[in-house]
Amino acid sequence: MNTFSVKAFGAESKTADLAEMNIERREVTANDIEIEILYCGVCHSDLHTARNDWGGTKYPSVPGHEIIGKITKVGSDVSKFKVGDLAGVGCIVDSCGTCDSCKQDLEQYCLEGFVGTYNGKDEHLGGYTFGGYSQKVVVNADYGLKIPKNLDLAAVAPLLCAGITTWSPLKHWNVGANSKVAVVGLGGLGHMAIKLAKGLGAEVTLFSRTPGKTEDAKKLGADHVVISTDNSQMDSVKGKFDLIIDTVPYDHDVNPYISTLNINGTHVLVGFIGKMEDALFTPPMIMGRRSVAGSVIGGIAETQEMLDFCGEHNIVSEIEIIKMQDINEAYKRMLKSDVRYRFVIDMQSL
Amino acid sequence: MNTFSVKAFGAESKTADLAEMNIERREVTANDIEIEILYCGVCHSDLHTARNDWGGTKYPSVPGHEIIGKITKVGSDVSKFKVGDLAGVGCIVDSCGTCDSCKQDLEQYCLEGFVGTYNGKDEHLGGYTFGGYSQKVVVNADYGLKIPKNLDLAAVAPLLCAGITTWSPLKHWNVGANSKVAVVGLGGLGHMAIKLAKGLGAEVTLFSRTPGKTEDAKKLGADHVVISTDNSQMDSVKGKFDLIIDTVPYDHDVNPYISTLNINGTHVLVGFIGKMEDALFTPPMIMGRRSVAGSVIGGIAETQEMLDFCGEHNIVSEIEIIKMQDINEAYKRMLKSDVRYRFVIDMQSL
Ligand SMILES: [Zn+2]
Ligand SMILES: [Zn+2]
Ligand SMILES: [Zn+2]
Ligand SMILES: [Zn+2]
Repeated sequence: MNTFSVKAFGAESKTADLAEMNIERREVTANDIEIEILYCGVCHSDLHTARNDWGGTKYPSVPGHEIIGKITKVGSDVSKFKVGDLAGVGCIVDSCGTCDSCKQDLEQYCLEGFVGTYNGKDEHLGGYTFGGYSQKVVVNADYGLKIPKNLDLAAVAPLLCAGITTWSPLKHWNVGANSKVAVVGLGGLGHMAIKLAKGLGAEVTLFSRTPGKTEDAKKLGADHVVISTDNSQMDSVKGKFDLIIDTVPYDHDVNPYISTLNINGTHVLVGFIGKMEDALFTPPMIMGRRSVAGSVIGGIAETQEMLDFCGEHNIVSEIEIIKMQDINEAYKRMLKSDVRYRFVIDMQSL
Repeated sequence: MNTFSVKAFGAESKTADLAEMNIERREVTANDIEIEILYCGVCHSDLHTARNDWGGTKYPSVPGHEIIGKITKVGSDVSKFKVGDLAGVGCIVDSCGTCDSCKQDLEQYCLEGFVGTYNGKDEHLGGYTFGGYSQKVVVNADYGLKIPKNLDLAAVAPLLCAGITTWSPLKHWNVGANSKVAVVGLGGLGHMAIKLAKGLGAEVTLFSRTPGKTEDAKKLGADHVVISTDNSQMDSVKGKFDLIIDTVPYDHDVNPYISTLNINGTHVLVGFIGKMEDALFTPPMIMGRRSVAGSVIGGIAETQEMLDFCGEHNIVSEIEIIKMQDINEAYKRMLKSDVRYRFVIDMQSL
């Protein structure tokens, strides 16, 4: 298979800083598109993968799955895109296409495992996929996303992971104009959850541990902020929420939130991968048919739906643009939650 | 308010055996029915309430909320029943009728708290309600249930708690002919879950800790039995079930079951009220949109639906009939799980 070389930024080992390197991309096959990357959002998964925090990272590792760019080549069978079109690539670049999940447009739950945009098995070149911290990417056109033309392109990038990760549960649990939604945690995911839930017409509450985020949350669209360490504030929202989107990326006690769910309400975890050490107290679940669930990103069709919705409702991420060379510094700041609310790399800098 | 005295069996304190006593019932008001009790099923809640295991028991305590009888009087405004009709009373004898839950026929989740058939606040006579271990009961006709005529009456009684407790999640989570359902625990609830899921057309699996229950489970309708302590058997059902009904009444680790859920599957707890001490492992939940939920009994309309369904499908509980005087012995046997699968009191014995 013919390939070409592009500049990228990646890690050679779990302890190495990210640095410039060259990687190979395949020449477009009949069903592929080649994208010149303009912007790439910086997700916590990028950092965890580069540092092998979850195990399983293959080196060199080139992260990045919030990719926005312009199409520079299309394969002979591609009708969805043409050269010059804007296109996006999110977390998924391939899936089996035939399992029960894929048949339902739930590629994120592909029973064979979807192919991640980075650190996924590369069926074309062997080895592992390289993400968006690079000049160009080549993907099957079915996994490319159409980008609304009216939005700030850099600020669209984070929709491709942070956006869809919160959109998918909002849609799955039928959030609409009469819904009451709460969001736990105000970071990359949390700020998108507020904007998208508000866009869907819901009444939106942010749970925060400190009052410092109140002003920001309200600017983003939250109707209310509840300080989760204040018992009287927590009591005031008992039984209120139809859906809680919990974006907190570390272990925490979900019991206090479950009591704030309405009958039939769901507390959905999208941020914490691990063991929840606090014992789950079943009476509020049993006596109100309340659920604790998990959810990951979203399928391609659902991601397109979200992008179209954001185009119609003028919703984008709050971002801070950085140069590719600043990525190691950005990771350090992310670990201190020092970003409002997403770094996006201007790929011209590479 | 006029009252009359009936014989009953109840506990005078948490350490006392149940013994014969007299209790007062109200004369029917315009909306009430008076029922001569023929059979009353024996639920684990009866035992826990009599012994104050959950706190909050008011003495004297007369348990029993699986009541089948014949109507002996109807109030002037009652059109639903007439004298001589069969009638049932389950766990609920009143609810606010106006809250969001009640308006959706979810009296079991009444936001004011439903009035339990026993140990509930008696708005008519003051004090607390007395259950079905008695000669007669008087309830608002709206909370009375019509009993199919083609079924063995004694074996219908347990449908009113054990039946509806498992029916409600089966219906809420849309179990039908293409569903794969698993049941954890083979007792009063578990055996009804198997029968009802099978009646709805699902493929039904029993999770059991020991092979000893295999034959019984298959007789009850289970298609498969999986020994939950056998890793290879557990692996063989990974990702299989749409719904797991967990009837186990003590703390246990649900993580091994969650991995056997299909994408979008739900593990619903109906038996254990308390803290689940084993840390919940979130990756199978997040990577498959799987949920852990709770559910309690069911509403009046749903209970009627279940009774009608059981009439059409000839479904009843497996029972052992006892005399009222044997109740203390029966409780001892229940604590040793020595009952297949529900005791029912023949109230003629009182
Ligand atoms: Zn991401
Ligand atoms: Zn698939
Ligand atoms: Zn019961
Ligand atoms: Zn109510």
